[in-house]
Amino acid sequence: MAIAELTDAERDEALGELTDWTLRDDGKAIHRSFKFKDFNEAFGFMTRVAITADKQDHHPEWSNVYNRVEITLTTHDCDGLSERDVKLARFIDGIV
Amino acid sequence: MAIAELTDAERDEALGELTDWTLRDDGKAIHRSFKFKDFNEAFGFMTRVAITADKQDHHPEWSNVYNRVEITLTTHDCDGLSERDVKLARFIDGIV
Repeated sequence: MAIAELTDAERDEALGELTDWTLRDDGKAIHRSFKFKDFNEAFGFMTRVAITADKQDHHPEWSNVYNRVEITLTTHDCDGLSERDVKLARFIDGIV
Repeated sequence: MAIAELTDAERDEALGELTDWTLRDDGKAIHRSFKFKDFNEAFGFMTRVAITADKQDHHPEWSNVYNRVEITLTTHDCDGLSERDVKLARFIDGIV
């Protein structure tokens, strides 16, 4: 089954909830930056996200430098934002 | 104790051994790209690197998108390449 891109109304509703996330200029992705105490804490966080992401079969685009993590969520199958991004963003928000 | 930047001769010798790594244009960092079977394998690799990096107290700058991992190694304390980068690169090469 194809993954549907969020409608403008659905996207606005999701962003109203995910207040720490920023919509990319092209409207096709959301981004959030994280800062932790040190590398160990940052990678521990990444590991929790990785396990859940792999279970959801929906993976972040992310980078890490020491205690900082940058995460971008987008859905390639629909070339934009989908419910999968919202679900993963909610999980991430729940563990930080 | 301050971490010494590699001399030009030491750097050339290291790069002669680390043939899969590319020296950045400014000479201050090395980079290697990795491609795995899937996210699970890519993040398993990252986890092995993370544990060793944290033990060595020398951390990579890296990003991951699904089965791809990009790693840059540099030593901020000496604003360039040091023996720490060579050591971590050798470990990484040993597990891929």
